[in-house]
Amino acid sequence: MVDEERFVEDITDQDDNFSQWYNQVVRKAELADYAPVRGCMIIRPYGYAIWENIQRLMDARFKETGVLNAYFPLLIPRSFIEKEAEHIEGFAPELAWVTRGGGEELEEPLAIRPTSETIVGHSFSKWIQSYRDLPIVINQWNNVMRWEKRTILFLRTSEFLWQEGHTAHRSIEDAEERTRMMLEVYRAFAEEDAAMPVIWGRKSENEKFAGALRTYAIEALMRDGKALQAGTSHNLGTNFAKSFDIQYLDADGQRKYCATTSWGASTRLIGGIIMVHGDNAGLILPPRLAPYQVVIVPIWRKDAEKAAVIEMVERIEKMLKGKVRLKVDLSENTPGWKFNEWELRGVPVRMEIGPRDVQNNSAMLVRRDNRAKESVTIGALEARLPVLLEEVQQALLQRAKAFQEQNTHYTESYEEFKQIISEKRGFVRVKWAEESVAELAIKEETKATLRVIPFDQPEGGVQGKCFYTGKPATCEAIFARAY
Amino acid sequence: MVDEERFVEDITDQDDNFSQWYNQVVRKAELADYAPVRGCMIIRPYGYAIWENIQRLMDARFKETGVLNAYFPLLIPRSFIEKEAEHIEGFAPELAWVTRGGGEELEEPLAIRPTSETIVGHSFSKWIQSYRDLPIVINQWNNVMRWEKRTILFLRTSEFLWQEGHTAHRSIEDAEERTRMMLEVYRAFAEEDAAMPVIWGRKSENEKFAGALRTYAIEALMRDGKALQAGTSHNLGTNFAKSFDIQYLDADGQRKYCATTSWGASTRLIGGIIMVHGDNAGLILPPRLAPYQVVIVPIWRKDAEKAAVIEMVERIEKMLKGKVRLKVDLSENTPGWKFNEWELRGVPVRMEIGPRDVQNNSAMLVRRDNRAKESVTIGALEARLPVLLEEVQQALLQRAKAFQEQNTHYTESYEEFKQIISEKRGFVRVKWAEESVAELAIKEETKATLRVIPFDQPEGGVQGKCFYTGKPATCEAIFARAY
Repeated sequence: MVDEERFVEDITDQDDNFSQWYNQVVRKAELADYAPVRGCMIIRPYGYAIWENIQRLMDARFKETGVLNAYFPLLIPRSFIEKEAEHIEGFAPELAWVTRGGGEELEEPLAIRPTSETIVGHSFSKWIQSYRDLPIVINQWNNVMRWEKRTILFLRTSEFLWQEGHTAHRSIEDAEERTRMMLEVYRAFAEEDAAMPVIWGRKSENEKFAGALRTYAIEALMRDGKALQAGTSHNLGTNFAKSFDIQYLDADGQRKYCATTSWGASTRLIGGIIMVHGDNAGLILPPRLAPYQVVIVPIWRKDAEKAAVIEMVERIEKMLKGKVRLKVDLSENTPGWKFNEWELRGVPVRMEIGPRDVQNNSAMLVRRDNRAKESVTIGALEARLPVLLEEVQQALLQRAKAFQEQNTHYTESYEEFKQIISEKRGFVRVKWAEESVAELAIKEETKATLRVIPFDQPEGGVQGKCFYTGKPATCEAIFARAY
Repeated sequence: MVDEERFVEDITDQDDNFSQWYNQVVRKAELADYAPVRGCMIIRPYGYAIWENIQRLMDARFKETGVLNAYFPLLIPRSFIEKEAEHIEGFAPELAWVTRGGGEELEEPLAIRPTSETIVGHSFSKWIQSYRDLPIVINQWNNVMRWEKRTILFLRTSEFLWQEGHTAHRSIEDAEERTRMMLEVYRAFAEEDAAMPVIWGRKSENEKFAGALRTYAIEALMRDGKALQAGTSHNLGTNFAKSFDIQYLDADGQRKYCATTSWGASTRLIGGIIMVHGDNAGLILPPRLAPYQVVIVPIWRKDAEKAAVIEMVERIEKMLKGKVRLKVDLSENTPGWKFNEWELRGVPVRMEIGPRDVQNNSAMLVRRDNRAKESVTIGALEARLPVLLEEVQQALLQRAKAFQEQNTHYTESYEEFKQIISEKRGFVRVKWAEESVAELAIKEETKATLRVIPFDQPEGGVQGKCFYTGKPATCEAIFARAY
């Protein structure tokens, strides 16, 4: 019995130490490991299978909007990165440099891409001649590197996997439309596929992407009350077009600069999924992204019962093949151990098959999210399971939505703001005069950052004063401590 | 008319200058571009879409054999690479080194992975405790870097995309079984999905992977008579296990070294597909890998005809959605231009819809491989197209098989060997005594290398003398000039 309980006993409660809980779950569920290279991670098969599902569903959403995938080089010449002034200023401290290759010192150091606006911009300038070539809408799934001193698996690592979209348009308005369109793709993915409710809006000048005109983001709320940026979309205006000479001949015979966009989401989404849904027993994975949607645990006490149980498990396995993502656990561990292990690993539905189930020609289904049980006859499984999985998916979204609402606060007082941020955390909505100096002072004092200026603003504009400066407010903003 | 012919006129004939033909086709079909970083390439959307299809079909074949995907870090500490003596000797000249990161000189330089046996081996040593943990069967789709001075798009670039599989087993025999199994996956993929016939067998000691016990490969024959290695599978024996301390506790209570394997196929497959199937009009893509399987070219002379043609094209597009990968070319170019462009881009089937087709409620289908035409009523398209695409797929395979047979020579004389290699090229099959010194001398003199010692050897063993040394032959071997 001690063995059977091991998984759960070893996990710290979320309320006691959330970051310890997070690390234990990531390691015990075999999602990822620290690599022997500082700041890097190894994504293990169970973690990578979540990423494959994220890629598949997000990529399909991209392609519905006309996105084509491509691949640009890993290494970027120093001269490229230096071309856009804000860009190099933003990324310089995080770069890794290749200085030797093929046995020789390189004449010009090459940076491992922290993002690819520069090298994509160079290609766009060669590919684009006329307005007929526009828009160009390209994406790549790749690895990038931004040197980090302190690392958290999935959330902050020097190397991470992501997708970066890059587009070029005739006008800043067209670029704005694409920027917003991709933010909507991220929102839909987060809420519909990851069951992760988000708030969305514009980033402040302090928080926007280095070189962007405007940055938009979706932000999710973790169960410890901290925010996680889960996807960003940038309208780059003509900044990169001017640095990389991306021009086109318009229908009116004039040469004009393109407007470009970029947008990205990364493996930190996996961290978000863990921290939005997980509980003290471990992961809870949304069915649409779970590597295994259903795990079958066979149960017998006497050897005489084994054959009939296994026979039925194999029959069910055959019946469900290709219909749900199924794992059958035939290992030598006890049923209790298996229950704990697959709860830790967040499989949405457990199916127990014991001698009584064989007798009744039924299976016991147990939901991971609320542990509700139901007995279903074998003939009904094929119809019931997809419905049940969708019920779990929706329940996770509703639970996370309720949590987000309960943890979104409104205040007009900076004193109360400080109290909320340090005691309750969550999103704090305030009236705001959009002053960068004030924003930095708040960050300095409370560690809270401006997450977004949300799209949903009071009808008829904001009345009243900024909660911090007392100056006339220009908008409402949402602050939080963030990962 | 001049414009309409442009694509074809500009392409060099294969017989005049095959490598020029290759480069022109790759650039004009917009498969890839040279990058501003020496030795690197940009894979453009049309080329990347071929890679996506390769990944999808090959990955499904991997997973049927129990492969799980994962991700290991890009950067490998120098000390890791130095642990396996043959491995570092083989790869040292091709490495790119990161020496600065996050604004500081690194204490230990980090190599951009040329392959990941070392860092995977390190993880295996931590993950594997007992025989119950075995086998471990892992793969990753990623980018690697091997510094090159002379580059050919897709075939030889410093950075390329590939997959690298890594497995660990209880015994060398188990590792051998997996090594051969993955070679069979490559063979099946090459022949069934890429319509690329291959010979397969074992590599010589000279040509095997740095650190392997045995290397196996599939080799395809390009239309210029040169060979291309299209996939390799290595039984690493206990070499890496000993360097990285990958041990397990066996059922008999003994600690033993694992045997490991690795196997890889890369974006050079795209180069192979171009050079196995292409003709003087450009690419010919096998239907299973083609980004677009069918292109619709609408045709009208008078404006009055346009509406009816477009209406029918849209109807067909709706009907075929999700059934075949379809491109509708509604650009302003002339039909003749479109015919040439899509022939150049290798789309397996062209569908022409003109006023007469509208009248007859039919479409004209034109095969890319042999230009055969057939008129098909609209109602029959949905059934006919998948069959026609499969006919094209099989025809490409048969044509390539016939080419390979015609260009596989047998000789017992080194004089004739030299003549074949320099005049006819192709595969040359000879009796062979397996001497490394002789192999190097032949390479020096003829530029031909030993491609494989094929699995199919004469029944009852090889009789007679080595074609080069005159010593008793131990096997038959296949030589060729190679990419």
